[in-house]
Amino acid sequence: MAELSDRSGVPVATIKYYLREGLLPPGERTGPNQARYGSGHVRRLRLVRALLDVGGLSVAAVREVLAAVDTRAAMHGVLGLAQRNLELRAGQVDEQAKEWAVERVQGLAARRGWPVKPDDPVVESLVATLATLHSLGRTELVDRLDSYAELADRMAELDLSTLGGLPDRETVVEAAVVGTVLGDTLFAALRRLAQHHASARSFGDT
Amino acid sequence: MAELSDRSGVPVATIKYYLREGLLPPGERTGPNQARYGSGHVRRLRLVRALLDVGGLSVAAVREVLAAVDTRAAMHGVLGLAQRNLELRAGQVDEQAKEWAVERVQGLAARRGWPVKPDDPVVESLVATLATLHSLGRTELVDRLDSYAELADRMAELDLSTLGGLPDRETVVEAAVVGTVLGDTLFAALRRLAQHHASARSFGDT
Repeated sequence: MAELSDRSGVPVATIKYYLREGLLPPGERTGPNQARYGSGHVRRLRLVRALLDVGGLSVAAVREVLAAVDTRAAMHGVLGLAQRNLELRAGQVDEQAKEWAVERVQGLAARRGWPVKPDDPVVESLVATLATLHSLGRTELVDRLDSYAELADRMAELDLSTLGGLPDRETVVEAAVVGTVLGDTLFAALRRLAQHHASARSFGDT
Repeated sequence: MAELSDRSGVPVATIKYYLREGLLPPGERTGPNQARYGSGHVRRLRLVRALLDVGGLSVAAVREVLAAVDTRAAMHGVLGLAQRNLELRAGQVDEQAKEWAVERVQGLAARRGWPVKPDDPVVESLVATLATLHSLGRTELVDRLDSYAELADRMAELDLSTLGGLPDRETVVEAAVVGTVLGDTLFAALRRLAQHHASARSFGDT
């Protein structure tokens, strides 16, 4: 375990915690206080760290995603699972604003051909965000919803293209999970830098 | 205060908490146990709720953003503040992966004409995400960094366009803050729906 810690850069206490939580399979027993860990363990450790630390998933969410990867669930199901586990925030909104937002989302989904189920947590998050903008009287983003959705479609094509040419199913699933979880963080940072650039141009660097 | 609670839908205990935390200015005293709250209070309450609940900012971050709005700080400065306060996650990464990532970010910034300072938390988040992808051996997203950055530039133009045509400076600042904070949540949800659609097309709905 000390060697696994050296190779992965993850402290021994943390590795023990992951083992207890079922995020890491046990090593092959070679003695009463010894176990052998392979390169699969190093790889899995890195994935767990990325999902927890950079992706911000909960331990329970990481366990569920890993179980889906390991049980060879259908590809599309695993992608959906990774997506559902990203906890999008939804605040409290009043009923009238919510109804208004549901109509906006249904119209958008119909125009883009997106399959949208009302009880999907992603749809709930979208409805809550639109309803909040509505109750704040800030509908500028909502007015441009179709333009944002068009960019989202282009980005989803780009996201999916990262999975082409990967050698095997396990790699595809791992790349999809990592890409979904880290992809938001990556793009949020790029968007901020681009906004900063555009804002400096519009308002001056003061 | 009971009336303010009715009009805003925010419980009295929560309003008292916001007052104590300096997120809401005190009402105009009209008696020993009475104060008058105006429509400005209702509007501010809604903004505070949105920043805290849907935007996920900390109380301290909301206080700082509101102070900047109220002190009529320079527009570009307020936008930068709202952006810095969005806590982008950054995990632990090793030095070699970090150097590799810094080079990628510098090259990208030069190609897009983005002004990039190494100690900017947004740049740190971007570097940490790229370094994590590198150490996981998942560089598919990094290979498409320029394509993602191009979409980020288009989105930033769209983001900034929401501020055109607003009547006064206070409205522009409020819209910019709300848009920055809620914009990420909104787009993350759109991106997931688009990914779901693209994934169902590529892998079948199984």
